[in-house]
Amino acid sequence: MALSPLAPAAFPDLPVIDGVTFAAGAAGVKYQNRTDVMLALLAPGSTIAGVFTRSATRSANVLDCQAKMGSDAQAGAAILVNSGNSNAFTGKAGESSVKRICEGVAARADVPLDRVYTSSTGVIGEPLPDDRITAKLDDLMAAQSPDGIAEAARAIMTTDTFAKGSAQTVTIDGKPVQIAGIAKGSGMIAPDMATMLVYIFTDAQIGHSALQSLLLRLTDRTFNNITVDSDTSTSDTLLMGATGTSGVDVTDNAAFADALHAVMLDLSHQVVRDGEGATKFVTVNVTGAANDTDARLVAMATANSPLVKTAIAGEDPNWGRIVMAVGKSGAQADRDLLTIRLGDLVLARDGWRAPEYSEDACAAYMKGQNIDINVDLGLGDGTCTVWTCDLTHEYIRINADYRS
Amino acid sequence: MALSPLAPAAFPDLPVIDGVTFAAGAAGVKYQNRTDVMLALLAPGSTIAGVFTRSATRSANVLDCQAKMGSDAQAGAAILVNSGNSNAFTGKAGESSVKRICEGVAARADVPLDRVYTSSTGVIGEPLPDDRITAKLDDLMAAQSPDGIAEAARAIMTTDTFAKGSAQTVTIDGKPVQIAGIAKGSGMIAPDMATMLVYIFTDAQIGHSALQSLLLRLTDRTFNNITVDSDTSTSDTLLMGATGTSGVDVTDNAAFADALHAVMLDLSHQVVRDGEGATKFVTVNVTGAANDTDARLVAMATANSPLVKTAIAGEDPNWGRIVMAVGKSGAQADRDLLTIRLGDLVLARDGWRAPEYSEDACAAYMKGQNIDINVDLGLGDGTCTVWTCDLTHEYIRINADYRS
Repeated sequence: MALSPLAPAAFPDLPVIDGVTFAAGAAGVKYQNRTDVMLALLAPGSTIAGVFTRSATRSANVLDCQAKMGSDAQAGAAILVNSGNSNAFTGKAGESSVKRICEGVAARADVPLDRVYTSSTGVIGEPLPDDRITAKLDDLMAAQSPDGIAEAARAIMTTDTFAKGSAQTVTIDGKPVQIAGIAKGSGMIAPDMATMLVYIFTDAQIGHSALQSLLLRLTDRTFNNITVDSDTSTSDTLLMGATGTSGVDVTDNAAFADALHAVMLDLSHQVVRDGEGATKFVTVNVTGAANDTDARLVAMATANSPLVKTAIAGEDPNWGRIVMAVGKSGAQADRDLLTIRLGDLVLARDGWRAPEYSEDACAAYMKGQNIDINVDLGLGDGTCTVWTCDLTHEYIRINADYRS
Repeated sequence: MALSPLAPAAFPDLPVIDGVTFAAGAAGVKYQNRTDVMLALLAPGSTIAGVFTRSATRSANVLDCQAKMGSDAQAGAAILVNSGNSNAFTGKAGESSVKRICEGVAARADVPLDRVYTSSTGVIGEPLPDDRITAKLDDLMAAQSPDGIAEAARAIMTTDTFAKGSAQTVTIDGKPVQIAGIAKGSGMIAPDMATMLVYIFTDAQIGHSALQSLLLRLTDRTFNNITVDSDTSTSDTLLMGATGTSGVDVTDNAAFADALHAVMLDLSHQVVRDGEGATKFVTVNVTGAANDTDARLVAMATANSPLVKTAIAGEDPNWGRIVMAVGKSGAQADRDLLTIRLGDLVLARDGWRAPEYSEDACAAYMKGQNIDINVDLGLGDGTCTVWTCDLTHEYIRINADYRS
């Protein structure tokens, strides 16, 4: 698979997070000649929070993680992730696989069973060969290293064309607090390789409920606002661990929230930039909606419209398709109050094509790699921003032409 | 544009509807060397009913038609349709265009202004050159013929690859009642050529409110249950005229309702069969949902999923993607009660791949032109059937590679 043209220049240097170690290994779950399993261990006292897919057919691992949220933070914690098999729609056998993996990790890492979290990503509906994973646990324990996060990012990739990482350092009360995260995802759901997975670590000190509510709030401005193909994975998981080893309490701290937001936004944008077949990074800004819910309807209708996305792929400033998307969204809209811009170029205003509209200027704008679609509904204060990519032949090739 | 591989063998022989005449002409709205305007005249006493797009950015023509529903049936009526320009998002000028066309038709056809209905289909946001249309009205009046419906079907085409018609004859109280309909549409919204338009005529006798409620009920089982790309036009219009000239009252008549349903189902399927880039005709049957609303959510989530649609294009029996679509739909679902079939072949049951699953048998099934996806949720009595097509390179080519 060719590297996405929207990929960052390089994987970033991620800081060591005191209290977290990593190791990756090649268990041969499905892929050959690459790593496909990672184990992260967190020091006793670490807070764990998580956000999960709302799919009604979510995987056994997701159900298990959800059941373990809020467990006693006095103990250590472990996160084990495999790629190559999603363990979704695998019935009772899938639940048994999760149990065996968790037991294997708990025994070796000396953490309680309810502090072992797992994720699986890959093909749906195939039995997970968990014995291949548990056979690697001794190696993964022996190889634990504070520097292993980049290797972990590579081990969780499926159809991703690049590994995804992001970090921020924020100084609070004169002390540095580190945040480092990794993610995988190439489409909200990749071909048979269902899943967006995100793991974020910090040495900040924060309780479970405070971290959980912060994570939910920031997810609604980051990972919940990206879309590649409108499809939702059975396995989407975001787990965050806070070791507290910095000694800095970040409860209700705005600077920490901003830094975490920056890491989450960066990782979510990297997932869009690795969207299947993507050649353009698209930002849809909706303002002036009657309320935020309406703004979100318009933004998502625009970002998910196959006609808008193919027009962007074709570098066609086809604003009639944006009018169509606004109209079908279900949000309150008034044709005569609507303003549509491409970047700063006004396309439509007062219910008609803007008098200053220039086909040449808009066509030139569409040749860029970053496309901003700005829709103002002229009704109220509701706003929403979502990020997506274009819909290209390559998306069809990846999803139709190759048998999975 | 090559003829869709799913096109019917030929345009059907449509019966003359007593009390309705047609003519088509070439006004040069946008296209050259083809007809692009049609005028249908209905005898005094004809009932008119209509169903329209719910888009918040619907066209001036749609708003005008909606305002005229329920007008006095004692007078005659006229329907004028142009292709090449949708008159959508054309501001106050668009409303003036509709008014001028309606005035021109009303004066010549001797019908009240509120009995003239217009539709426009084509590019969004360009001023409609209504003078080119009114300049043709004398010709259209002179050419009126009871046999002109096939010509009318051709005049309203935009990116359609075939003209669409359907008819039924039903005998009620020993007397024949005729129903004939035409449609255009190639995608719920075609590239810049927004619109699905449908015109149905009958010599049955039925009042406005009875016809309107019948039309709404049947639309929910036909045109509202097809999807090509999940996009909704600013101009979608279904108009039906009942001349009453057969002298047969069909109010609450089940046989008439069945025959009308057959015409609407046939026309709606023809729109799917002309879906942009379509190579497969797909039926999604959902049963066992908690209620009909949930069934519809699951059916539409499946039929609109780019991953399901590309799997069908690739002839890949990728049932994990159907599980994904069920999960994301928002409907109540229980993994362990779900049964998924391709035709009669069971893919998944009891929360896992069915023991009798055969990759070879399913792969062979996917090579057919008609694909039935049957999802049973095992929860209740809710059902829904929707029809769609696959998502292919040709869809991208039509919508991205050519500048509109």
